[in-house]
Amino acid sequence: MARQQRAIRTRRIFLEAAAEVFDEHGYDAATIAAILERAGLTRGALYFHFTSKEELARGVLEEAVTSDGVLPQTLKLQEWVDIALMLAYRLPREPMLSASIRLSVDPRARSLFGTRWPDWISLGATLLVEAKERGELLPHVDPIATSRLLVGAWTGVQLVTESMAEPPELVTEISALFELILPTAVVPGVLARLDTSPHRPERIMEENRVATAS
Amino acid sequence: MARQQRAIRTRRIFLEAAAEVFDEHGYDAATIAAILERAGLTRGALYFHFTSKEELARGVLEEAVTSDGVLPQTLKLQEWVDIALMLAYRLPREPMLSASIRLSVDPRARSLFGTRWPDWISLGATLLVEAKERGELLPHVDPIATSRLLVGAWTGVQLVTESMAEPPELVTEISALFELILPTAVVPGVLARLDTSPHRPERIMEENRVATAS
Repeated sequence: MARQQRAIRTRRIFLEAAAEVFDEHGYDAATIAAILERAGLTRGALYFHFTSKEELARGVLEEAVTSDGVLPQTLKLQEWVDIALMLAYRLPREPMLSASIRLSVDPRARSLFGTRWPDWISLGATLLVEAKERGELLPHVDPIATSRLLVGAWTGVQLVTESMAEPPELVTEISALFELILPTAVVPGVLARLDTSPHRPERIMEENRVATAS
Repeated sequence: MARQQRAIRTRRIFLEAAAEVFDEHGYDAATIAAILERAGLTRGALYFHFTSKEELARGVLEEAVTSDGVLPQTLKLQEWVDIALMLAYRLPREPMLSASIRLSVDPRARSLFGTRWPDWISLGATLLVEAKERGELLPHVDPIATSRLLVGAWTGVQLVTESMAEPPELVTEISALFELILPTAVVPGVLARLDTSPHRPERIMEENRVATAS
């Protein structure tokens, strides 16, 4: 058991090191040597888990689609907002997440591994279909098209934000994005009850702590 | 004069070839050999215009920020919409434009050349400030923040759209993006007069033909 847990931890260290190197240098310029140096572990340990740079990239992308820490909510739209805000909060803190975007926009990595955008779009569309069935969305809203636009807009806002000389908080930008798009798509009575504040992720984490403690 | 025009044309051929190679392979994997092969011209001709791959990339990025073909309109917001829709129409048809996005999201190219996003943001912000002074925007709208969000959203929608197995038309997606964000930002009487249709670029080009002919 201890050995197995050590193996899981070692694998994670390599994935995080690879994510950092992909993120900083791009997929093509990333080398196994740089990843090893970042991880501070031996080549033998690496090859026990991953046989190539390709496999490391696949591992990073597999970790990327996650609604971890988002609890079921009375409003399905709140869950949709929560996933997007939570991810915006976590991304600048977790290289695995920013590396997965980097790999998706890199033409060579994309041709090798595809992207995780279809999974994000389908996760969002499922929530929006449910939200529509419950009457939370205005009748004209197309759940799939709206989910696709949000995934695109979210991604681009992240890329432009991180490129700025003095970047604002990503979660503040994504919160502003929701304030711009939600009034056009959401039933007014529901809109007033949605929490799209940049502080929402911290509130969710606090709710989770309470839920776990009780 | 004939010689000068030939030189301008040759320079353009190299920039377009470089744009295609950057777009397909990314900046790092792009080689001078591949660019030469694509251009179908000699190495000597290339080095007359560009001394390095870096210089080719700079040349591509310089061409990228353009409101070409967009005429002044009664509503400043229509000019803002026109630039975004026109670019969405042109991008899938012009590798120089998609390559400039590619170079902006590539970490190594970005560290060498920066991005053109600040220029796009400032172009949009100038139009939105004017629109606000003329009473076209609702009082709560922050022109700079809104321009920044639109540049981000536009970029990401492009990236996600082109990655799809059966991509919709980019101009249709950007038109849908405006339908989602404009009602929250624009004075109702102005909103009704804005043309955000995916066919708007073709109408603009027709207007230009008429304007040039008369």
